[in-house]
Amino acid sequence: MISLDDVLAAREHVSAVARDTPLEYSNTFSRMTGAEIHPKLETFQRTGSFKIRGAANRIAQLSDAEAEAGVVTASAGNHAQGVALAATRAGVDATVVMPRHAPVSKVDATRRYGATVELHGRDYADAQERAHEIETEEERTYVHAFDDDLVMAGQGTLGLEIVESLPEVDTVVVPIGGGGLISGVATAVKGLLDDVRVVGVQAAGADSAARSLAKGRRERTDEVDTVADGIAVSEVGERTFEVIRERVDEVVTVTDEEIALALTLLLERSKTLVEGAGAVALAAVLEERFDYDDGEVIVPALCGGNIDLNQLTTVVMRGLVQLGRYLKLRTELKDRPGALEGLIEVIAEHNANIYAIRHDRTSRDIAVNAAEVELDIETRDEEHGAELVATLEEHGYDVDVLV
Amino acid sequence: MISLDDVLAAREHVSAVARDTPLEYSNTFSRMTGAEIHPKLETFQRTGSFKIRGAANRIAQLSDAEAEAGVVTASAGNHAQGVALAATRAGVDATVVMPRHAPVSKVDATRRYGATVELHGRDYADAQERAHEIETEEERTYVHAFDDDLVMAGQGTLGLEIVESLPEVDTVVVPIGGGGLISGVATAVKGLLDDVRVVGVQAAGADSAARSLAKGRRERTDEVDTVADGIAVSEVGERTFEVIRERVDEVVTVTDEEIALALTLLLERSKTLVEGAGAVALAAVLEERFDYDDGEVIVPALCGGNIDLNQLTTVVMRGLVQLGRYLKLRTELKDRPGALEGLIEVIAEHNANIYAIRHDRTSRDIAVNAAEVELDIETRDEEHGAELVATLEEHGYDVDVLV
Repeated sequence: MISLDDVLAAREHVSAVARDTPLEYSNTFSRMTGAEIHPKLETFQRTGSFKIRGAANRIAQLSDAEAEAGVVTASAGNHAQGVALAATRAGVDATVVMPRHAPVSKVDATRRYGATVELHGRDYADAQERAHEIETEEERTYVHAFDDDLVMAGQGTLGLEIVESLPEVDTVVVPIGGGGLISGVATAVKGLLDDVRVVGVQAAGADSAARSLAKGRRERTDEVDTVADGIAVSEVGERTFEVIRERVDEVVTVTDEEIALALTLLLERSKTLVEGAGAVALAAVLEERFDYDDGEVIVPALCGGNIDLNQLTTVVMRGLVQLGRYLKLRTELKDRPGALEGLIEVIAEHNANIYAIRHDRTSRDIAVNAAEVELDIETRDEEHGAELVATLEEHGYDVDVLV
Repeated sequence: MISLDDVLAAREHVSAVARDTPLEYSNTFSRMTGAEIHPKLETFQRTGSFKIRGAANRIAQLSDAEAEAGVVTASAGNHAQGVALAATRAGVDATVVMPRHAPVSKVDATRRYGATVELHGRDYADAQERAHEIETEEERTYVHAFDDDLVMAGQGTLGLEIVESLPEVDTVVVPIGGGGLISGVATAVKGLLDDVRVVGVQAAGADSAARSLAKGRRERTDEVDTVADGIAVSEVGERTFEVIRERVDEVVTVTDEEIALALTLLLERSKTLVEGAGAVALAAVLEERFDYDDGEVIVPALCGGNIDLNQLTTVVMRGLVQLGRYLKLRTELKDRPGALEGLIEVIAEHNANIYAIRHDRTSRDIAVNAAEVELDIETRDEEHGAELVATLEEHGYDVDVLV
């Protein structure tokens, strides 16, 4: 099992290519929770996530012959970019296999960091199979995304930084996909501090580590389903599971709706972009998924920020719905001049803003002289939304609330 | 005219409520420009923009009687929030008049920071008129958003922080709306350093300061039109104009498309959310709107992050269009089974992703046995988009590129 010394030894290799990321006290989230919240902004890491730390440590310790032959991995996301940049900076050739329909932005970023990208197969499993073929054919070293001691130790450097910036930390909250990050961080912070707690957070739709801990042995989640694609891993690692069992105090889960809410609040209040996986630690704090005291010093690790800008829009919309600030409703208008204006006036008088209107005169489900209208509306909170719906009904509109 | 001493004197009042914001070196933008780019992340300021600095300094220097009577201002945005929090923290009562249809999120934030909000009138001018009535009726002190020496001096503390973090700075780039921020910052940095350049940036659709400098006297821009609502000011201040004339080296403008591009890059590459006004300084650097040398140390001030999440979506889409990564096109399908699948297959084979499809069988503009389809597509860059369109045309589709 990895030790604090392994993490300390990783540091020089990691800092040759990765950066120390800031820890920023958050007024907003401290006020919301009563605790002292200091998010670790790993979103500012090079390549946009912590993955470069583990990749850098793994690649730095290749033998000369291995370095000459190059590395290979499979990934649809952050690990691809981490391996690409770490390899390029070490002068090592890297091939990354990505599924054929990986987002263009991620494929491009991986190429930009210097890797050769091969697009192969429908999903991660196909890509991984191809990467292992390349491993054999070209005698490249396969860089595992988490289940590797050097990778875990590299990720652990994030824990060293937390303790250095904030030795009074009480609780560190870390996302778990395969478990590489939390293994390294728990090893680091528990090695350095006597009295610190490490809480792991999984997406409810990818909860292999949580279920494995409950059962006492590794459990696979066959149907992984979460907005947090960075931690959508079907099975916690073998080596990481051992470390988690030993050093992590508690593992909790959060739903996609809770993730969307935390992501939206981070963007709106802290002006910080995270991906789904980057929001889960804060989500667990906001939802009080584990107990904490007033004034407790908590560091949620915002582990990555690589979200497709297109996906972002969808997630933020879900977050606003959670906040009661986005209301989508459908109603019918008598199809005569002025009918739409009348509706809009009621909404404006209620101090709600209209985001979008879809007006369809041809829908076949409704009476011939009526027209259907769908509205996206900004409201202040749930109560305001409910009042608006009630007012519309008082004015004789039949209202369906869609979300 | 304000002096360095005024800015230095402002500091203790400002730091009682505002925070020092980070200056973070950007690999991405340095690589893109050849200069050394260190954005000043004023987006992390309390209330999400620099406005709290000036408001804090102004409010701290009220007489006891004035403090007792309270303050009033008009604003649809950042100044409202800055005044609200600065007043609350000083124990001074604040009334903020906002236009009736100000975004719910901004009205709410202003209330949350402790001000009484009065919604009045259709636009900023109406709100301002009402605020001056309240000034007279209730003998409150009107806190001007920019044309006030104490406000300017307060904003200047941002310049002090830049020089302290990075004394080797060559050029500071600052947005101009009314001119309060740049007046303070230019006074601070030129007061402290012998050889530093200050460049002002305006939105092309709100370029009063730029035109005023060209003419040598204040010029009003009657029809202000820009995505950067934080600097959508029709006329540079009287006092600020004097300072700008004396201490700012150059004032340039950027278009909305350039602003959208910079905002999108900041979000995607730096995981940092800025509002339109917060992106203009970086936009001017990226577009080389002024000359700079390789390796020149440049600080663009990202002065605010308060963008409505709804507006964000629209701006990011425009940014992606600029990058050639978002393509909206329209074509016609023979209205028979499988026609849509055929089209989608061509696009998938070209490694482009489909964001959205609108398929309309009822449009009256096209032949009876055809159906119109509109597609939003993610492409790698302009070339990739052009290739896709050419391929679709080879397959017999008539393609209209919408954006």
